[in-house]
Amino acid sequence: MDNFQYVNPTKLIFGKDQVKNALTKEVEYYGTRVLLVYGSGSIKKNGLYEEVLKQLNQINNVQIVELAGVEPNPRLSTVQKGIRLIKENQLDFILAVGGGSVIDCAKAISVGAHYDGNVWDIVIGKATPSSSLPLGTILTMAATGSEMNGNSVITNWDEKDKRAFSSIHTYPKFSILDPQNTFSVPMDQTVYGIVDLMSHVLEQYFHISENAPIQERFGESILKTTIEVAPKLLNDLQSYAHREVIMLNATFALNKILTMGVKTDWASHMMEHAVSAVHDIPHGGGLAILFPHWMEYVSETKPEKVAQLGIRVFDLDATTETTKLAKETIQQFREFWKSIGAPTRLSDYGIDSKEIDLMVERSIVNETIGNYVSLAKDDVRQILERAL
Amino acid sequence: MDNFQYVNPTKLIFGKDQVKNALTKEVEYYGTRVLLVYGSGSIKKNGLYEEVLKQLNQINNVQIVELAGVEPNPRLSTVQKGIRLIKENQLDFILAVGGGSVIDCAKAISVGAHYDGNVWDIVIGKATPSSSLPLGTILTMAATGSEMNGNSVITNWDEKDKRAFSSIHTYPKFSILDPQNTFSVPMDQTVYGIVDLMSHVLEQYFHISENAPIQERFGESILKTTIEVAPKLLNDLQSYAHREVIMLNATFALNKILTMGVKTDWASHMMEHAVSAVHDIPHGGGLAILFPHWMEYVSETKPEKVAQLGIRVFDLDATTETTKLAKETIQQFREFWKSIGAPTRLSDYGIDSKEIDLMVERSIVNETIGNYVSLAKDDVRQILERAL
Repeated sequence: MDNFQYVNPTKLIFGKDQVKNALTKEVEYYGTRVLLVYGSGSIKKNGLYEEVLKQLNQINNVQIVELAGVEPNPRLSTVQKGIRLIKENQLDFILAVGGGSVIDCAKAISVGAHYDGNVWDIVIGKATPSSSLPLGTILTMAATGSEMNGNSVITNWDEKDKRAFSSIHTYPKFSILDPQNTFSVPMDQTVYGIVDLMSHVLEQYFHISENAPIQERFGESILKTTIEVAPKLLNDLQSYAHREVIMLNATFALNKILTMGVKTDWASHMMEHAVSAVHDIPHGGGLAILFPHWMEYVSETKPEKVAQLGIRVFDLDATTETTKLAKETIQQFREFWKSIGAPTRLSDYGIDSKEIDLMVERSIVNETIGNYVSLAKDDVRQILERAL
Repeated sequence: MDNFQYVNPTKLIFGKDQVKNALTKEVEYYGTRVLLVYGSGSIKKNGLYEEVLKQLNQINNVQIVELAGVEPNPRLSTVQKGIRLIKENQLDFILAVGGGSVIDCAKAISVGAHYDGNVWDIVIGKATPSSSLPLGTILTMAATGSEMNGNSVITNWDEKDKRAFSSIHTYPKFSILDPQNTFSVPMDQTVYGIVDLMSHVLEQYFHISENAPIQERFGESILKTTIEVAPKLLNDLQSYAHREVIMLNATFALNKILTMGVKTDWASHMMEHAVSAVHDIPHGGGLAILFPHWMEYVSETKPEKVAQLGIRVFDLDATTETTKLAKETIQQFREFWKSIGAPTRLSDYGIDSKEIDLMVERSIVNETIGNYVSLAKDDVRQILERAL
């Protein structure tokens, strides 16, 4: 392992009716002037919005300002709007109610509220936040793990650029995870969430550090459990038992325990961010397409770890030759993702080679991306072309 | 799963030379008047004591008061001595340098320093702490997981009673884990640490809640990795690579992620605490003796989960009949622990049936112990008698 520091201050409040049980007390610990951030309004259809207001209104002198309509790929302009609302109304707490996009947007707002310049500086790493407005979340979709980490992904549409940043100051103070709040997530979004959480495991599993057996086995545990439970959930979207497993798996997939002491990859995510910055496709869909192609590409030089995954997660025969094992493993991922309804080619989203130059350019922030295998522009182009 | 809340505020600082890299900065964030708590003085032999003093002395106006000689089963009288030292010298920070015993002692001191009555009230749950003096740790032995949880076990020799308590206020602010600091842990203590961490996994694995597949697979991951690495470590006690895996495994075994959403057992620990309160034997040794007997006893009515362990951790044949599988699993644990040099019978420590009444009585705090199978006095007596 490499040397590391790990701290995760987020309080997880997990289970049935936890909004009713815990929200009022948690929020009033931090403030009374709340920015309520949410997305397209699905929380108004399933009753969660009303429940949240009811609990918030139990706080003495509470004042609630709303930022609605956060986009699936949350936009810089929306973040800036949230920051303005906080400054104009002197708010002291942010409550994000939604999936990863809503939470990511709220995180950028929370550090932007304490920063005088353009918050995009923080997103692209030009400025480093040193404090933030406290943030709590109510999660409504199992996918990004944003509820228990400091990550945030923001899209700047003016520049067709989608970028991720992370800070200790953007960890939520608390996150309320009631699996019931994911019952209304439709089939396609549920599938994308499953692919997303599995991809997070893979990005960390393909690290380049030595001797991290427990981190790897934890990753395999998440993958194996997800592969067992996901098909059952997709047959019964109202199953509390299956929703809760996927929800906790998604949290563990990116609460950074898999990253302890290892240098992780993340090239596939950078390529997907580039594709969806140019074409606005669902993140989970993009990952289901790109990850098998990435695995194929890196297996040409480094098949061992892909093969290990196959043995431990798909119970493939360990005596098979390594290159063949790697191929079989990738085939298993393809088949599994296809079986749950994920797309397999970029052309499924109508993407052709026209904007491939821009997608390649947007993938590469510096000279290369990825650590497991370092990819330059030509490598990225080959992977994207194979994925068309 | 059951509803749960999880928060773990401890900052883990893991890796080579992290005392030198991080200690000064971490301590001076909290204070300058330090109670330095340590054990029998092994840290004076391996150079760690000198290194710690060197780093602490870089803090402006630092004042260091020492509490040396904390016992392997830390005593209430030592805790009380530490509390007196803090009050007399108006100290503002506690630094524990040692294994679980030293850290547990420091935790009791940290809450006792903010409590006017007898700290034993807190240990036995008669009083609940609401604050504490901040505490940091430098871990020198992989075993108890005390470096990343709120647990503390204290022995009251006047009453021959050994009791555990836990509080959010006793989580260390930081814990520095440099595997090099465990190089000098001798063979027998290394073995006890391995048994202890495995037992922690088992206590949580044998829960009585439904539908916790990821928690169970994480537990199996820790067991499997430990079983793979432990024999290699015992062949080469100076191996950084093997020490680091066991060290991180021990932390994960009891940083409570395995306890999320499940009602755990802990009967074997309560029996062991009773045995070692009466006879002062090593905790890990007691567990290696008692746990297989506990598994045998509960398998008479509930063999399924023991069998599951055998399939997933020892790769036993899943088609074998469940009762037989459970027996084979227990045999595997016995053989593994015996192979690494752990004791198998209480008589290995010269314990006979003479004080069995007292051990039974001390095991049972209320009417029964354990959740997986609820054990009354007669059950405990049978298990202890079989273990003689």
